[in-house]
Amino acid sequence: MTLPAGDHVRYGGDYNPEQWPAPVWDEDHAAFDLAHVTTLTVGVFAWAHTQPAEDRYDFTRLDAIVERVHAEGRQVVLATPSGAMPPWLARAYPDACRVDLEGRRHVYGQRHNHCPSSPAFRRLSVAMAARLAERYGDHPAVVAWHVGNEYGGACYCDLCAAGFREWLRARYGTLERLNDAWNALFWSHVFGDWEEVVPPSMLSEHWRGPNHTAFQGITLDYRRYMSDRLREGFVAEKAAIREHDATTPVTTNLMGFYQPVDYHRWADDLDFVSWDNYPPLPDDPLRTAARMAATHAAMRGLKGGQPFWVMEQTPSITASRDVNPVKRPGVLALWTWQSVAHGADATLYFQMRQSRGACEKYHGALLDHSGRTDTRVFREAADLGAALATTGSTLLGARTPARVALLLDWDSWWAVEMTDGYNRHVSYLQTLLAHHRALWDANVDVDVVPVTADLAAYDVVVAPLLHVLKGDVAQRLTAFVERGGSLVTTFYGGRVDASTNAFLGSPPLDALVGARVEETDSGVPGAANPVTLTLDGVTTTHDATLVFELLVPEDGTEVVGTYGADFYAGRAAVTRARRGAGSAWHVATGLDDAGLARVLRHVVAGHGLLGPHADDEGVEVAHRVAPDGTRLAFVLHHGDAPRTVTSQVAGVDLLTGRTVAAGEQLVLPPRQVLVLRG
Amino acid sequence: MTLPAGDHVRYGGDYNPEQWPAPVWDEDHAAFDLAHVTTLTVGVFAWAHTQPAEDRYDFTRLDAIVERVHAEGRQVVLATPSGAMPPWLARAYPDACRVDLEGRRHVYGQRHNHCPSSPAFRRLSVAMAARLAERYGDHPAVVAWHVGNEYGGACYCDLCAAGFREWLRARYGTLERLNDAWNALFWSHVFGDWEEVVPPSMLSEHWRGPNHTAFQGITLDYRRYMSDRLREGFVAEKAAIREHDATTPVTTNLMGFYQPVDYHRWADDLDFVSWDNYPPLPDDPLRTAARMAATHAAMRGLKGGQPFWVMEQTPSITASRDVNPVKRPGVLALWTWQSVAHGADATLYFQMRQSRGACEKYHGALLDHSGRTDTRVFREAADLGAALATTGSTLLGARTPARVALLLDWDSWWAVEMTDGYNRHVSYLQTLLAHHRALWDANVDVDVVPVTADLAAYDVVVAPLLHVLKGDVAQRLTAFVERGGSLVTTFYGGRVDASTNAFLGSPPLDALVGARVEETDSGVPGAANPVTLTLDGVTTTHDATLVFELLVPEDGTEVVGTYGADFYAGRAAVTRARRGAGSAWHVATGLDDAGLARVLRHVVAGHGLLGPHADDEGVEVAHRVAPDGTRLAFVLHHGDAPRTVTSQVAGVDLLTGRTVAAGEQLVLPPRQVLVLRG
Amino acid sequence: MTLPAGDHVRYGGDYNPEQWPAPVWDEDHAAFDLAHVTTLTVGVFAWAHTQPAEDRYDFTRLDAIVERVHAEGRQVVLATPSGAMPPWLARAYPDACRVDLEGRRHVYGQRHNHCPSSPAFRRLSVAMAARLAERYGDHPAVVAWHVGNEYGGACYCDLCAAGFREWLRARYGTLERLNDAWNALFWSHVFGDWEEVVPPSMLSEHWRGPNHTAFQGITLDYRRYMSDRLREGFVAEKAAIREHDATTPVTTNLMGFYQPVDYHRWADDLDFVSWDNYPPLPDDPLRTAARMAATHAAMRGLKGGQPFWVMEQTPSITASRDVNPVKRPGVLALWTWQSVAHGADATLYFQMRQSRGACEKYHGALLDHSGRTDTRVFREAADLGAALATTGSTLLGARTPARVALLLDWDSWWAVEMTDGYNRHVSYLQTLLAHHRALWDANVDVDVVPVTADLAAYDVVVAPLLHVLKGDVAQRLTAFVERGGSLVTTFYGGRVDASTNAFLGSPPLDALVGARVEETDSGVPGAANPVTLTLDGVTTTHDATLVFELLVPEDGTEVVGTYGADFYAGRAAVTRARRGAGSAWHVATGLDDAGLARVLRHVVAGHGLLGPHADDEGVEVAHRVAPDGTRLAFVLHHGDAPRTVTSQVAGVDLLTGRTVAAGEQLVLPPRQVLVLRG
Repeated sequence: MTLPAGDHVRYGGDYNPEQWPAPVWDEDHAAFDLAHVTTLTVGVFAWAHTQPAEDRYDFTRLDAIVERVHAEGRQVVLATPSGAMPPWLARAYPDACRVDLEGRRHVYGQRHNHCPSSPAFRRLSVAMAARLAERYGDHPAVVAWHVGNEYGGACYCDLCAAGFREWLRARYGTLERLNDAWNALFWSHVFGDWEEVVPPSMLSEHWRGPNHTAFQGITLDYRRYMSDRLREGFVAEKAAIREHDATTPVTTNLMGFYQPVDYHRWADDLDFVSWDNYPPLPDDPLRTAARMAATHAAMRGLKGGQPFWVMEQTPSITASRDVNPVKRPGVLALWTWQSVAHGADATLYFQMRQSRGACEKYHGALLDHSGRTDTRVFREAADLGAALATTGSTLLGARTPARVALLLDWDSWWAVEMTDGYNRHVSYLQTLLAHHRALWDANVDVDVVPVTADLAAYDVVVAPLLHVLKGDVAQRLTAFVERGGSLVTTFYGGRVDASTNAFLGSPPLDALVGARVEETDSGVPGAANPVTLTLDGVTTTHDATLVFELLVPEDGTEVVGTYGADFYAGRAAVTRARRGAGSAWHVATGLDDAGLARVLRHVVAGHGLLGPHADDEGVEVAHRVAPDGTRLAFVLHHGDAPRTVTSQVAGVDLLTGRTVAAGEQLVLPPRQVLVLRG
Repeated sequence: MTLPAGDHVRYGGDYNPEQWPAPVWDEDHAAFDLAHVTTLTVGVFAWAHTQPAEDRYDFTRLDAIVERVHAEGRQVVLATPSGAMPPWLARAYPDACRVDLEGRRHVYGQRHNHCPSSPAFRRLSVAMAARLAERYGDHPAVVAWHVGNEYGGACYCDLCAAGFREWLRARYGTLERLNDAWNALFWSHVFGDWEEVVPPSMLSEHWRGPNHTAFQGITLDYRRYMSDRLREGFVAEKAAIREHDATTPVTTNLMGFYQPVDYHRWADDLDFVSWDNYPPLPDDPLRTAARMAATHAAMRGLKGGQPFWVMEQTPSITASRDVNPVKRPGVLALWTWQSVAHGADATLYFQMRQSRGACEKYHGALLDHSGRTDTRVFREAADLGAALATTGSTLLGARTPARVALLLDWDSWWAVEMTDGYNRHVSYLQTLLAHHRALWDANVDVDVVPVTADLAAYDVVVAPLLHVLKGDVAQRLTAFVERGGSLVTTFYGGRVDASTNAFLGSPPLDALVGARVEETDSGVPGAANPVTLTLDGVTTTHDATLVFELLVPEDGTEVVGTYGADFYAGRAAVTRARRGAGSAWHVATGLDDAGLARVLRHVVAGHGLLGPHADDEGVEVAHRVAPDGTRLAFVLHHGDAPRTVTSQVAGVDLLTGRTVAAGEQLVLPPRQVLVLRG
Repeated sequence: MTLPAGDHVRYGGDYNPEQWPAPVWDEDHAAFDLAHVTTLTVGVFAWAHTQPAEDRYDFTRLDAIVERVHAEGRQVVLATPSGAMPPWLARAYPDACRVDLEGRRHVYGQRHNHCPSSPAFRRLSVAMAARLAERYGDHPAVVAWHVGNEYGGACYCDLCAAGFREWLRARYGTLERLNDAWNALFWSHVFGDWEEVVPPSMLSEHWRGPNHTAFQGITLDYRRYMSDRLREGFVAEKAAIREHDATTPVTTNLMGFYQPVDYHRWADDLDFVSWDNYPPLPDDPLRTAARMAATHAAMRGLKGGQPFWVMEQTPSITASRDVNPVKRPGVLALWTWQSVAHGADATLYFQMRQSRGACEKYHGALLDHSGRTDTRVFREAADLGAALATTGSTLLGARTPARVALLLDWDSWWAVEMTDGYNRHVSYLQTLLAHHRALWDANVDVDVVPVTADLAAYDVVVAPLLHVLKGDVAQRLTAFVERGGSLVTTFYGGRVDASTNAFLGSPPLDALVGARVEETDSGVPGAANPVTLTLDGVTTTHDATLVFELLVPEDGTEVVGTYGADFYAGRAAVTRARRGAGSAWHVATGLDDAGLARVLRHVVAGHGLLGPHADDEGVEVAHRVAPDGTRLAFVLHHGDAPRTVTSQVAGVDLLTGRTVAAGEQLVLPPRQVLVLRG
């Protein structure tokens, strides 16, 4: 099962006309025509009106919506409504509401907060999915199923506790293995009965929040369990749909780099990936652009490079930040084309018409409270819709031809941020993004993949903060290097096993890296040690911060960078060990962006993978290769000022028909987009 | 029913002699004589000793206190003790304690924390009020009733939940109207049974505290309900008093700009207003002075300009701040006279003698732990008492002749600060105070009134952040402008209805303002867009921050100010639309103080309302007109350094008998006060 | 009962070999031999494996550990395991887990968190202690008992509430005395029945955490009670041990300046003091060094100067800070010798081998995860072990010949930080440490003692923030001064009684100090008033911050320092009153370090007590006098750079045999240590 078929990049978004009287529907569709809207997501919050009471279903409104959308020639992404339960459900079944990390049972309110272990919630949500599938499964307008909404968070109730014990029993089999995995003899935590296990919460193992725990092993397993538990709900709804509809693809909208849920554990159960692109407040446009590129790559990496959908983005402002600026002119198109450049086959909005009330009433929409189509936002969105329509099917199904992989690992993310010791200011995500940024600045095509990914297609593997070393990863990385690959590891890499217990003696990666870590020093944020790098005969000095591993390199390991201060001045900070036909690099400290760029550009250049506009700041180039072999180069100018560059790419721009030749002077206005067919 | 009669501005304060043995009472009254104390508030915390057990009342001590005060020729403000319940009550009736926003039932402790829905608390507090009224209602010393103390906070218990449902039923009648008001189809919140409604708390709709809610409509209604619910307790005690005492005025001490309780909903039930003046730590003396002036005006505005009492202020330090500096020499008199200048007919202290122990033991008092009368604080207070006595009845009942109204609206306050979207750094109160400050600096007499106030007396109405537009406000503002008034509205103005649902199409105020808002941009604190203002032929540039509305002015609307940066450079930031004989001004962004001053001074000058010392920083002039028509000008110098000004006022100083002529050089030492009879 | 006998300063630490298989034990002991380890603490977290179920004890592993240690010629500190309960206990007896300040009952997790009122926990922990004593009490290797671990925190459950009522009944006898002590008439808190009393928590008297309470008297008594309640558990285990072992000394590891528990209330029940030395992150090495010196002195002061043990320190990093830097080369030895200089007869580590997993897995250890003995950390520790061994018994039992006492008082600590009013930014501990630092910089030998200490041995008593004045302290301080002593008091001194009720009229210390406090002004952090000091004919000016008492000195009181700004410019800030043969100094404001140094150096110099290297920054000199009268001078250079000083001390260095003569040029490399036998 893969993505829904289509004739060009889909355009549209969340549509909740049940909130509006009929005349508004006419206005909606007239506006959708102007904006070239093809696809509408309906039903996300429909539970209350499709099942107004436990014993009563009412599809009148939903029927009308679907029929009208169909009649207008548009297609439907049909959501199951389990992202937001109705009031009657919470009242009748209090256990459908969660118990939070503080141990408090919640009552009715908000959304995305059902207990995944609640039998009533499971039964009712599955029954609803089945009814929807039965009713709309073969409707010609329905092109995809959207189960639930933005699954996340965690529950700590007694039912979840019981489920945790079952999950542990399945994982460990015996209490002996459980106690060993959790190193339970420490602090007298040896469990003598499965029933003694309680969820790790602020009432048991935690203090100062979700990242401070006395037992990392317990907390790590609870996160894995909760990722699985939430997924079970998705799987159960999907199964109910499949009973009535064997073919329509099923997805749910993910949230990009969302720490609490391990999407790699979900990927196999999704027919295709979709995600909601709400980057943090853009303090720096390039940082935001790079982050989005990384997120697209990570979402694409969930299912082996298969194209994905952007299920939500805002046409203008978000409502949930403390400060919610409007998207500047051109940004909407730029970001949308960027998503296509990185693998999106659909770009959809939340939402088509602004809500009158409640917490998202100021969230941007194609149509705002005025209902006007002469607003800047509507005009930009309509122009974009037209442009997407002109590109036809060329872009659909295209793949990213990356030869560089960045490893993303939720276990390491969790472990790094919940571990006591060394430095709690180390952010897994920020470190990952810093490594990605160095590659993005260099216009390198990058895949962001799990540690289980097949590495055969790659020349370079970058593995920042790969703290947890599981399964056969060490062997596969070694094989990768020996056959000619370049591996880059960093401080904290390969220190602990899948239970976050430290490796004893010589950790498995040491032989590959060609060095051991004798001590790990830490500094407060801002405190830097200058690191001198010598690469290609050029020596530069960079700030290093936060963590400073004191390496003892083996004989033959090259010292590429050294510390400049403190009692370990002169000792190795960056090393390279040649192994077989390849090299293993180790960056033992928090190198600044320029230092990281030097190392990573050197590594990718060694494989001839430096991108075309690597020295033109703010100019992103990303490639896709269509199923028919057509190669597309997306040139995206993220800068605020026009700039002229000597083109390193060539082709015919799909958007304008203009031909660009390599070597010509290319004038890029701010937020310029070119889609060059090579 | 109005204020208690008297022969001059009352002076005295909270007096709790039950904490002291008899000899101390003698010292107290000797000191009171020295300080010209006339009025003592007794009984505020008397519950424990007047009713030591549910079935036992004991008025021995209270009798002795009242008799002694009377014998000394002073008068009594008699408090009901419901502000602080005794331990036995909480133990016998746990539901008298609140459930907090986190869902936690409290147990005995602190004060001001009874559940307003507790039947036991209601019964016992009303019984106590009745007994007190029966016993003291016709006592010649008793001049006012002081019910409870500083009502505030909120309860979230099941009884309050039940009361909330009743309140909603009364407000909405049907669930259809409730669901419509709350826009319940959003996030599937359609209520099918009143019993499904639960209070909005951290266990239901809220996160990150009281201002973050998924459903603004629910939270807004809960605040209205809780304001009403607390008021019911006051009303019930007042009714019990009235059964025994038909004539003595009844009040309770309010807290100025206190966000959780809508005092406009209370005003009709108070015979007169009294409030406790504890301004925040004075980082800047002028800001503090302006804030107090605004608060006096708001308290005066609760009952249509009727004079009020300052029920509490501290003679020296507060105890509850993190840092509690002493009042500098002269500040006590300056602030006291300022309160009189703005409508106070009584100025009282908390408290007459410092407590030995517990959390207020370091709170200032007329008599401190030493009991000495040779302290600076006592001497200043005694001098002030003497001065107040010399002014006689001239000041009593005087009114403020303001022709400028500043609109204060709790619904907008709540809505602005609990709304998701745009900018959470916008503070309703700080914005209101910034507008007031511009007027205060210009020595303009200002009323701070609810949106329901009669606007007939005003030439200028300033309406900052009038986000919620209720009832006939739009029509009345339009009529006000058309008959010649000047209205100033701001960003966020008139966007939502009484349920905080956005107006659709063209919001009601747009026609009056002569512009529509196409987009609303936001900036992080500190990020500014320069706004150029052209008024009276002079052009100046000012920082604008936080919110930037992108206006589309109608033809004929004057653009007075324009943005200077970003993609909307050159677009309107401040506009003026002439309507009938008047004008509607709109300030579409967070203009800095100087910019706001330019706009507001221009507007009030257009009506000839600029004050007399508008250009002498730190010199406040406020007017009152006595019932007999006598006009009084209070000149208050808030600066730390002496200054000489050319007098713009004239009259005989009530405090010194000196005559001041307009145009004479007036030397103002720091904290100088003149009370000029014109 | 006193310290365990020994032949030289003990060396070793916490050893948990139950976490490791047998071959690792061989490696351990081989390494211990290299490091000259003599003493191992075992059993701290042994509950789970020594009592795997309530009805089953199993000492197999513990036997093996003890026997092996013994066989290797080392000695055992045997711990009772009550610091960390096993899972079965919490499951069977939920009341063994605490209810926290928020009123939440915890479930199983972490450690150091048993309810001290739980009958089950008490019964089981005492039974375990009895079994251990029975089994190992006469074992030749066992030299000390270590009961529990780092007692701390508090419980607020119903059992603790009942215990609190009993404790109050015992303290006050009648409710009248209770109500008087708590000033209960304030806020109507008069208790009419003991059962009405509830613990002061976030559900009753507290807000904003443990230091904000409506009734200081209640909270202060709860802290005293909880200190006692925790101690009862220790005492009960000790008694059980004593039934089987009449002679082996018993201790528990304290935590230095640990605010929640009043160690002075524990001292009599400890046979000897031991404590865990984990200073905060060293932002400044000298501040850290001074703080450790103060803490050693305070721990030594618990039992009248008797030597103590450092039960724990880390060989390298801690794991529990946000940032955990490694100890720089030489720091471990420097700090260890510093502890010996101030009275330690044993210096032990947590821990001997790094844990594989859980929250302390990165905490430093003699042997890290690699198990190597060629690491820097091991080498330094081994060198240190050798050096300690060379010193023999000379250092054991030596006393500090201090003639300066610094008063430490938990009641004042609690009172200062929980009191409303004046300035919440005043830190008791930071103020105490600032006074100590001035003395430490001057190389003055200082004892840190309780207010009940015999003052006969002292010439100078420094009493910072002695807010609470209890018992006969005023009389004893007066006698101390009159016989020739110098007393230094500060702002907040002597204001309240043992219940934190303010003294009325003239506070007891005023006559001694020769001044009364008319007002107490406060400033925000950073706001300074310049204070001019004139001492020895030299005038200097210093910043004073936070609190500014406005003194009214008596005739004859010398004004040594005056304020330079604000309305009290020129008034007294530092005074000296001569009384009998001595002087009472009062520092009325938060003088900066240089100002404090001027005052305190002047005072100690007046008694000829300035230390030998008082002007050589970073050079610490501390003295001990051995039981045989041998005088030892420890010279410790805490600076990062080498320096040459003219020696003010003389003797033979125990570590090198080198002779140092007074007046010779002494070259001190960074972290140099000399132990000079005089």
